[in-house]
Amino acid sequence: MTTEELLARRERLLGVGAALFYEQPLQIVRGEGVWLFDADGNRYLDLYNNVPCVGHANPHVVEAMARQAATLNVHSRYLHEGILDYAERLTALHAAPITTAVFTCTGTEANEVALMMARVATGGRGIITTDAAYHGNSAEVRKLSRLGDRAARELPLDPEVRAIPVPQHYRPIARGLSEAELCERYLAELRTQIDGFRGDGIPFAGMLLCPLLANEGLPDIPRGFMAGAAQIVREAGGLFICDEVQAGFGRSGRWWGYEVMDCVPDIVVMGKPMGNGLPLAGVVARGELVNAFRRETRYFNTFASSPLQAAVGMAVIDVIEQEDLLARVGDVGEYMRTELRAMQDGCEPMADVRGHGLFIGVEWVSDRETEAPDVAGAQAVVEGMKRRGVLMGKAGAHGNVLKMRPPLVFEREHADRFLEAFRETIHEVHARGSA
Amino acid sequence: MTTEELLARRERLLGVGAALFYEQPLQIVRGEGVWLFDADGNRYLDLYNNVPCVGHANPHVVEAMARQAATLNVHSRYLHEGILDYAERLTALHAAPITTAVFTCTGTEANEVALMMARVATGGRGIITTDAAYHGNSAEVRKLSRLGDRAARELPLDPEVRAIPVPQHYRPIARGLSEAELCERYLAELRTQIDGFRGDGIPFAGMLLCPLLANEGLPDIPRGFMAGAAQIVREAGGLFICDEVQAGFGRSGRWWGYEVMDCVPDIVVMGKPMGNGLPLAGVVARGELVNAFRRETRYFNTFASSPLQAAVGMAVIDVIEQEDLLARVGDVGEYMRTELRAMQDGCEPMADVRGHGLFIGVEWVSDRETEAPDVAGAQAVVEGMKRRGVLMGKAGAHGNVLKMRPPLVFEREHADRFLEAFRETIHEVHARGSA
Repeated sequence: MTTEELLARRERLLGVGAALFYEQPLQIVRGEGVWLFDADGNRYLDLYNNVPCVGHANPHVVEAMARQAATLNVHSRYLHEGILDYAERLTALHAAPITTAVFTCTGTEANEVALMMARVATGGRGIITTDAAYHGNSAEVRKLSRLGDRAARELPLDPEVRAIPVPQHYRPIARGLSEAELCERYLAELRTQIDGFRGDGIPFAGMLLCPLLANEGLPDIPRGFMAGAAQIVREAGGLFICDEVQAGFGRSGRWWGYEVMDCVPDIVVMGKPMGNGLPLAGVVARGELVNAFRRETRYFNTFASSPLQAAVGMAVIDVIEQEDLLARVGDVGEYMRTELRAMQDGCEPMADVRGHGLFIGVEWVSDRETEAPDVAGAQAVVEGMKRRGVLMGKAGAHGNVLKMRPPLVFEREHADRFLEAFRETIHEVHARGSA
Repeated sequence: MTTEELLARRERLLGVGAALFYEQPLQIVRGEGVWLFDADGNRYLDLYNNVPCVGHANPHVVEAMARQAATLNVHSRYLHEGILDYAERLTALHAAPITTAVFTCTGTEANEVALMMARVATGGRGIITTDAAYHGNSAEVRKLSRLGDRAARELPLDPEVRAIPVPQHYRPIARGLSEAELCERYLAELRTQIDGFRGDGIPFAGMLLCPLLANEGLPDIPRGFMAGAAQIVREAGGLFICDEVQAGFGRSGRWWGYEVMDCVPDIVVMGKPMGNGLPLAGVVARGELVNAFRRETRYFNTFASSPLQAAVGMAVIDVIEQEDLLARVGDVGEYMRTELRAMQDGCEPMADVRGHGLFIGVEWVSDRETEAPDVAGAQAVVEGMKRRGVLMGKAGAHGNVLKMRPPLVFEREHADRFLEAFRETIHEVHARGSA
């Protein structure tokens, strides 16, 4: 079947407008480690997919999944040691006050739980996020999505949700400030929004954000912002919620993005890489927060807290630990950023290279002076990389931030292959752009 | 580890109040077909679990899951024939106007999609349900849950949600009416609620309900109610949505509960048995409804529409078709209802035996004259059946309806085993009750 026939069939069966990547969409049929293969047998180095964190079709994970599915997979209203072992291992990876878990199937569901939990615990309703956030697809969680969700941009802001500008060094809210002053300016924005809730008579429940601000474009965040924000939120009676759906499970070279940011959240949301592709997500928090949530909501999720989720989640942690992936992620990521920064001199559009571990962002601009986002140029890089057999994406409020986010089993030899293709591509795109 | 130690560990790791079945919870370690096994090696005949519809640990499903997980499991922004093949096969099982699918991971997510779809298509907001419904655990879907969700009973009714009384022959809204008159009385309740929205200036979006009213206690519904309700809803500009999360996939002896009810919904929600335990759910509808939904929301779900969901969903349909389960479900279910009805004479509390296919409800009352629900008695039956190695549950607005809902691979010999244990148990419970 040709791509055109497949596309027509897809529109008929899944509807018009189900999102696809690339001008000529890829038909991927097989995956292995950091590689994806299309229907014509072409091989692509994957710097896009964070969900298969321990590699596409990881045999240890597949074996754990098959073994558990062949043994038992039921809901959580019977006792099962597997889910307790997993909850114990997972919470032990978190900061000390965090002891207790609520499992769900998707990050959206986990953010639903986090919002309910914060609202139950505080008696408040108001939630603060950033003005370029995206946290999921349910009616309630979509209220938190602004620029990160193009469809939501046109919706009126819900009265229970307020947003602060994205805290960042590049395109900062004010110029010529020291790092400490810039941080303070963003924290002042947070105080303003909390005061706004107070003024409107909406009791404050908390702040929810990705500790690395992934959808916001992975900015360099002024040092101290996250810890300062957590303190301000708590002083105002709210809870500080980190959405680690993208940042967590070793992506940054640490287990959790909040560790990189030197803060400890009250509630942590996890998802995407947690089951290497099996729908597995969840929330961890202090016991009393989970207890209050369960008492109030009697939350039950048919497919969650299952023996299958537990077995697969365990296997993912096994591989991350046994292959010492955190150290490798830190090394390879740092190497890539160093090499990318060395390309900036010869490439005007590469205005800013940043990130943590194997989560790398590159601002692609049409003019470094005006910092004007070049979305078309960024898209041309993504398409050029695809032609060279490398998959990557874009992110950020303007959609002009090149995003590299490979499976965590990405090695230095893969980085070199990426860098070679990237050098060729930016030369081509930049030359075309300035011609 | 003793049950007490496990319980303490569970409260610490999953929180206090995570729901468990039975006075002494079961520790289930293995499943096979219609059987579950506890940690002490005891075997239980499963008449509770509808999710593993083709049997616990079905080898065909496990093999499909393992094979696909070892090959490819990525998100849906690449083309993949597997998900199109599955969407084609699934929509072909539905009534003719239904052509197009939106996949999700859970029934809650599918109901979120259905609500958004109905609201986008109609421009309305108001949704009608029953006063004993339960449709899921997200903030938006919880608004539809009344008696079906004990925690939600205390919440104020959302202005965008209205409920009608459960249409039923047992405990009817008025006595001494013909079937047609009773049906008309319930339809009048629906018209009243639609008028109520109009009066409050809330544009009407539609009605969402389980075609078998499973959480409502699986009542005998006055003939013609569902088709009549669908017509009234459409005439008022709304859409008629069937939540087939419990009723679908052969449970009733037909593929879909709406077939038993002689109506064709505009939007169908599916879940639980769809992936035999893999998180897989979704919505099907006419193409133009899905297109409008996608255009408006740009809906994307990371783990859904995946090659893994497709492979497992296909395997479930394979087994249902290859083992001719629909016919068997109809036969065995009818046999069980006949045998249960034969027990009613000698057992005052068994006031009403009803259901469709392998979904059976028995009203357990303290007095047939007053029809007073006997929740404690029903619970005693459930516990007594457990002691005899049979698992079943309770449902309904009052929690007094005994619920039998085994995997679809349940055979006549299993039915006989169940009936024997049931005879002993009701004798014991009834004798105790009248002593």
